[in-house]
Amino acid sequence: DIMREIESQFSIQKLSGKKLLVTAGPTKEALDPIRFLSNQSSGKMGYAIAEAARQAGAEVTLISGASLADPKGMTVVHVTSAQEMHDAVMQRFATCDAVIKAAAVADYRPEHTASRKIKKSDGPMTLTMVRNPDILKALGEHKKDQLLVGFAAETDHLEDNAKKKLNSKHLDMLVANHASDGFGSETNKVTLYFADGRKQALERMQKQQVARHICNALSGLFEMSVSK
Amino acid sequence: DIMREIESQFSIQKLSGKKLLVTAGPTKEALDPIRFLSNQSSGKMGYAIAEAARQAGAEVTLISGASLADPKGMTVVHVTSAQEMHDAVMQRFATCDAVIKAAAVADYRPEHTASRKIKKSDGPMTLTMVRNPDILKALGEHKKDQLLVGFAAETDHLEDNAKKKLNSKHLDMLVANHASDGFGSETNKVTLYFADGRKQALERMQKQQVARHICNALSGLFEMSVSK
Repeated sequence: DIMREIESQFSIQKLSGKKLLVTAGPTKEALDPIRFLSNQSSGKMGYAIAEAARQAGAEVTLISGASLADPKGMTVVHVTSAQEMHDAVMQRFATCDAVIKAAAVADYRPEHTASRKIKKSDGPMTLTMVRNPDILKALGEHKKDQLLVGFAAETDHLEDNAKKKLNSKHLDMLVANHASDGFGSETNKVTLYFADGRKQALERMQKQQVARHICNALSGLFEMSVSK
Repeated sequence: DIMREIESQFSIQKLSGKKLLVTAGPTKEALDPIRFLSNQSSGKMGYAIAEAARQAGAEVTLISGASLADPKGMTVVHVTSAQEMHDAVMQRFATCDAVIKAAAVADYRPEHTASRKIKKSDGPMTLTMVRNPDILKALGEHKKDQLLVGFAAETDHLEDNAKKKLNSKHLDMLVANHASDGFGSETNKVTLYFADGRKQALERMQKQQVARHICNALSGLFEMSVSK
C-alpha cells in the first residue's frame, strides 16, 4: 500500500536533521494594481519536493508564489514578486543546509509599477522592463556549506543551458526539463545534472516520484559532503 | 433551506428561453511559451453569474479564461488570449439574446510572441505592446436586439468611468466595482448603471447574491424591451 511504500522509501529518514529551503511557483510582477507579468509555473513540483523532504525527515521552509493549499508540517511563506522571493530566501539562507529553488522567478519586472489602473489609449504602448535580482547567483556567491539545487525549464538546447547554469551559478545539482514536459502538469520528465559531471535521466513520472528522486539525490550529496 | 431559497428566487424562471453568453476570468497574453501578461481576475464573478442565469432558466454558454471547475448544465468554452476570447464571443453573438461580459480581457498584448523561451540578458528590455480587439465595442457595433452587460473595475473615478463606458460601448447595463472590492474575493460590492440613467448601488455581498441581482436586473431589461 501507499503508506508502506512511503515508509520503505523514507524509513531511514534520509534528510533527518537537515534544514531545507524550498521555493515554488511563479512570481507576479505588477504593472499596476490589476495587471501583472507572470509565467506558467503551477508550483506543484516545488510543493511535491517540500512534502517529500518533510517525509524524509527534513525541517522544511517553503517559500511560495503559487496559490496552492498550504502543506502541513512545515513553515510556508507566501510571496508575490521576485524581489519578495529574493528577500525571503536571502533572509533564511545563512541558517539552512540546502536550498531547492524550484520557483520560476521572473527575470524582468516593469521599471515602474503604477499605483492606479493604467487607462488604455489608442495605439501601442512601450513597456520598459528591468532585471530582477538573480537569486541563484546571489546564493552561489554567499554559500558556505549549503547545497544548492537549481531548476532549468527550457524550450531548446536543454543540456547546454543546463550545464552552463550549473557551472555559472555554482550549483551542486540542477534539475532540467523541457518546458512542455512540466508546466501545469501532474507529471514531469527531468534529468538531474551534478557538479561532478554525473547525469541521471529519469523517465516521465508523477511529480511526487520526481520529488523523491530529487530528495534521494540531495541526501547522497549530503553524504558525500560529509565524507570529503 | 438553500433549495427553497433558490426556488423562491427563481421559481418563475425569469430567464427561461433566453440564450446567454457569459464571459469570465482573465486572459493571458503570451510573451513566449512560458511568460505571459495577465490580471487579478479569478473568474468567480462570471462563474456565479453563469450559474445564477442557468438556475433562472437560461441556456448558458460560458466563455472562460479562468482555471475553475466547469459548472454543470451549460456549455463551457475555454480560451487563453483576448483574441481567442474575441473570436469565441463574436462567433456566438448573432444567435444569443444577451451577453454578460464579466471577463477581464487584456487591453494590450505583446507585439511579438516568441516561439522559444526568451533568454535573459543584462540590462533592461523594451516590450512593445499593441492593442487587443475591443470586444465590447465590437459587440455594441454589431448588436441588433441583444442586451449587452459590461463590467468596469476601476481604482479611481469609478462613477465617471462607468458612465463613460456605458455610453461609448452602447451597453444596456454596466456593473461597476472598485478594483480592491472584487478581485480574487468571495464577495463583491457593486453598483449597477443602466442605459436609461437608473443606478442601483448594492451592499457588499457574496458573489452568488450579486449574480442573482444582475440576473434579476437583466430579466427586467428583457421585460422592458418586450413592452417597447
